[in-house]
Amino acid sequence: MTASVPQGFRLAGVSCGIKQDSSREDLTLIVADAPSVAAGVYTQNLVYAAPVAVDRERTPSDKMRVVAVNSGNANACTGQRGMEDALEMARLAAEACDAEPDQSLVMSTGIIGDFLPMDKIAAGIRSAAERLGNDEDAFLSAARGIITTDKSHKIAGRSIEVAGQTIRIAGMAKGAGMIGPKMATMLAAVMTDARMTPADAQAALVAAVDDSFNCISVEGHMSTNDTVLLLASGAACSEPLAGDALSAFRTALREVCIELARQIPDDGEGASHLITIDVCGTATRDDAFSIAKTVANSNLVKTGISGNDPNWGRIVCAAGYSGVQFDPNRLSLRLNGTLLYRDGAPVEFDATSVSHSMQENRETHIILELAEGDASARFWTSDLTVDYVRFNSDYHT
Amino acid sequence: MTASVPQGFRLAGVSCGIKQDSSREDLTLIVADAPSVAAGVYTQNLVYAAPVAVDRERTPSDKMRVVAVNSGNANACTGQRGMEDALEMARLAAEACDAEPDQSLVMSTGIIGDFLPMDKIAAGIRSAAERLGNDEDAFLSAARGIITTDKSHKIAGRSIEVAGQTIRIAGMAKGAGMIGPKMATMLAAVMTDARMTPADAQAALVAAVDDSFNCISVEGHMSTNDTVLLLASGAACSEPLAGDALSAFRTALREVCIELARQIPDDGEGASHLITIDVCGTATRDDAFSIAKTVANSNLVKTGISGNDPNWGRIVCAAGYSGVQFDPNRLSLRLNGTLLYRDGAPVEFDATSVSHSMQENRETHIILELAEGDASARFWTSDLTVDYVRFNSDYHT
Repeated sequence: MTASVPQGFRLAGVSCGIKQDSSREDLTLIVADAPSVAAGVYTQNLVYAAPVAVDRERTPSDKMRVVAVNSGNANACTGQRGMEDALEMARLAAEACDAEPDQSLVMSTGIIGDFLPMDKIAAGIRSAAERLGNDEDAFLSAARGIITTDKSHKIAGRSIEVAGQTIRIAGMAKGAGMIGPKMATMLAAVMTDARMTPADAQAALVAAVDDSFNCISVEGHMSTNDTVLLLASGAACSEPLAGDALSAFRTALREVCIELARQIPDDGEGASHLITIDVCGTATRDDAFSIAKTVANSNLVKTGISGNDPNWGRIVCAAGYSGVQFDPNRLSLRLNGTLLYRDGAPVEFDATSVSHSMQENRETHIILELAEGDASARFWTSDLTVDYVRFNSDYHT
Repeated sequence: MTASVPQGFRLAGVSCGIKQDSSREDLTLIVADAPSVAAGVYTQNLVYAAPVAVDRERTPSDKMRVVAVNSGNANACTGQRGMEDALEMARLAAEACDAEPDQSLVMSTGIIGDFLPMDKIAAGIRSAAERLGNDEDAFLSAARGIITTDKSHKIAGRSIEVAGQTIRIAGMAKGAGMIGPKMATMLAAVMTDARMTPADAQAALVAAVDDSFNCISVEGHMSTNDTVLLLASGAACSEPLAGDALSAFRTALREVCIELARQIPDDGEGASHLITIDVCGTATRDDAFSIAKTVANSNLVKTGISGNDPNWGRIVCAAGYSGVQFDPNRLSLRLNGTLLYRDGAPVEFDATSVSHSMQENRETHIILELAEGDASARFWTSDLTVDYVRFNSDYHT
């Protein structure tokens, strides 16, 4: 996609020396020209990083001006000093943009347990504040500034027409490892020029995250730093969205979040397949979600798919230990469109042809059908490859 | 250890052509000379295999004569025909030993979703029945007959003196993959010549399994076939164990089960480390167990250890998403004896020396200390290596 920055925002990503490779951006500023609505959704890990503590306290809000993000250092498990560093990072970002100290949010991602290099952070914030822009280059440099082990930046956007006004939504995300619901070391910031109340912004974000960032995993390890922010400048409309316009916005926001979220397991460390798991016919959405998540986090399922093996036994077995009650004699399974298992018993199928379809397509599609009700859920994950293990044996998070 | 078969049992393991490698045993018979007490603990997977259904129905019992085990084919997800095959396998085993059709138990492990090759099973049972013995060779061939991807057979034994009588306990186990609590594709059969009631046998087995086979994982994938059986011939004593003698038996049985269980993650597919996780200072044992299990099943923790990386951040992070409530500011962590994290903050330590200790020792020991109470739990797992992924991308379970 081409990225179109919503009205009222300027951005920049710069390199300030936190990452070892000095050619890579590692500090991003997102600046709203005027006080903006901000909503946030955060990791549910009991051990959460200092920037999460800062942002959780400050959102939802109607006066935010700045988001500062660094990559290469998570400022997690850093005790009291980590809290002081996160607050100082927020203060420096606000100062660089002529905002009040509490008008800023912060996000960090990278190595756990090291203290933030505050001199580099301070220099990076000053440098980014001088380079702010609202063109595509600015957006892309900002999107690159938040990534760590990602192979590339991740962006998505939509424009919608409501009540004769064009509203833009544009987001960036990062994440390739330590990814598991609820959320992961994934950061995302979504901007919009819609005008909305903090309560509507928060509710829209929570609903969108539930169907997107909460439905992905790489290895199911929930991070200390997960954060998704929504910033609404209001620059495109005079009155807060309501009624049909708000509904249309929520739909578009959900689409943007899903488009961003899918890119994370697709770029999962070492991944050779993006796996989409649909579970349908359950009594509740929670049941479908639990089954899909359990299948997604099975190393046996993931290694089987990396080997292009239509190994339905591992998938059926994982569904069985999900903790959800269902009739196993009414369970059926399709893989890339082919029925492999019907009503609790194997079906004859052409294994070579299914394996071939897995080899030819980066996307693998699993459908589990039950007969307990009408609810369903969709989940995305990556496969588990030799490269994932190599990478995570060597890389010190 | 040298294996000493308890009185009243004869065993044999033979090759009947289920495994591709015809030099490997794939069918085992355990025969009690007289009707014996039998207890069983089974997978909690909703999708369980036909032999599990048969045994669950038949235990606890005071009249069992035969256990027939095949490896190479799990007879799981095989519908009604699978049930008929399991019952027929039980009938054939009973017939070969002049027992009634319902005096036999069956266990299967191997590929999911293929029907049992009943002609091979029948020939194997006949052949094994002709080779029964109670010496070490017989025991070892039987132990080899139940393994699949295991690098070697797994046995353990104890002798205890109670009330002037020598009571023997000897067990065999299998398992190297698809291992996760509650239980895994792990099979175990423990024999004893103690005399005991079916109720005492069942209670003793449940307690022993809780501290052993339920506290191990390789990749956390709970299998369809997990079974642990206890057979008590009563040949060594005239009266059922009670009081102190029963307590002494329970202690010895627990030790045998732990010794068998530890061998499974130690032989985890591709494993280069056996990881022991002790969690102490929790309010309840369940809390300690949940934290230990969550750490054990984190791919990031496991890959870090395979790389000899003292990556305490991943361990602390996993503890945080275990779902257990605790004060993260009172969390401390030791790895191979070195304090890495104290009261929620990092501690300076010699990373090179800790990494060296991980490289030098196959066993890695993690201790997580909390300040919520006096409960604790111990859990064993294997690390995650490139070889695990290679193996499970190629091997069709």
